[in-house]
Amino acid sequence: MDSAVTLAIARELGFTCHALSVSYGQRHSAELDAANELARTQGAAEHKTVGVDLRSIGGSALTSDIAVPETPADGIPVTYVPARNTIMLSIALGWAEVLGADDIFCGVNAVDYSGYPDCRPEFIAAFEKLAGLATQAGVEGRGMRIHAPLIAMSKADIVREGQRLGVDFSRTVSCYQADAQGNACGLCDACRLRSEGFAAAGVPDPTRYRQKA
Amino acid sequence: MDSAVTLAIARELGFTCHALSVSYGQRHSAELDAANELARTQGAAEHKTVGVDLRSIGGSALTSDIAVPETPADGIPVTYVPARNTIMLSIALGWAEVLGADDIFCGVNAVDYSGYPDCRPEFIAAFEKLAGLATQAGVEGRGMRIHAPLIAMSKADIVREGQRLGVDFSRTVSCYQADAQGNACGLCDACRLRSEGFAAAGVPDPTRYRQKA
Repeated sequence: MDSAVTLAIARELGFTCHALSVSYGQRHSAELDAANELARTQGAAEHKTVGVDLRSIGGSALTSDIAVPETPADGIPVTYVPARNTIMLSIALGWAEVLGADDIFCGVNAVDYSGYPDCRPEFIAAFEKLAGLATQAGVEGRGMRIHAPLIAMSKADIVREGQRLGVDFSRTVSCYQADAQGNACGLCDACRLRSEGFAAAGVPDPTRYRQKA
Repeated sequence: MDSAVTLAIARELGFTCHALSVSYGQRHSAELDAANELARTQGAAEHKTVGVDLRSIGGSALTSDIAVPETPADGIPVTYVPARNTIMLSIALGWAEVLGADDIFCGVNAVDYSGYPDCRPEFIAAFEKLAGLATQAGVEGRGMRIHAPLIAMSKADIVREGQRLGVDFSRTVSCYQADAQGNACGLCDACRLRSEGFAAAGVPDPTRYRQKA
């Protein structure tokens, strides 16, 4: 849902959007299918999925045999994928350079963020500085802007913003362990944060939950 | 050759080394085979190759149908792979975090560097700052060190340092368009910089060149 709202914001600002998903070995591809569909229905110029094999590194419940927790825990949770946002932004940076684009939007969020270090404003600022140096744009002194329009929003704010922009949340997949059709477990951190966001915004939750066993 | 010398330096400094290669869609896998062999013969604890599909982005002679130039050109050459070092360092960062390692070595070089923006000291410094923020180490205030021991060396310096450390340069592959056995073309920028380095160091060039047509 964060990616979908971010795309809607970028479109409203007038950007031509080239949407990127990363197939990194996550537990299911339903979120990639959903991203492809949402990119199309929300006016992206194109959608591309790039593969990177983070299962060969492991270290996360999303990329190894570690189970996804179904109760909240303190500290950085085991669903944290080491360096995932750095890797995804780096791939986005490479594609942006090929496209000649100077702006990258990402849906990271520092409020209801599950305690991930790579969702913090200081991380985004450091990546923007790096991106300006890493590329041809940097050599030419143009720099690269990293936009994180959701970073200071609560999940309820994101729900409201998405509603204003006409995002069909029933098509977005947040669950860490969705089934092949994108039906959510209703138990993991991502499901919990999402459903609390709808409740706090006073918006009916359109999430497709799978039948409990 | 830069990676092999960097590994030898890290080993001399007493580090236990987990060697990473990235299969990003480059023109040949001979450099990956060579890296695997060199990691073993030079005392790395392990060697891992992680795949990331940069051919789906293109934009470089190494990852698309653009021909590898066989004469030097001004500016950033077409062999530059957009954001490649950012992506490779990001994957290394993810693996380092899984391993609990606080030190990443890379063989970038800012002297005989073909004009790549992501080989400059300011790029490495910005990545080190980012890495410190992106990870659990950053949250805990430990930071992450990015070592680039070759960055200020000439290719001749690198040849001499490798010789001192016993690196078998006949097994390293630098050529952008090596054949499947790792035989070099002798014409591309990477071959030219390499052979000039041996000449300047006064060391016989052990590179395996392929037969001219």
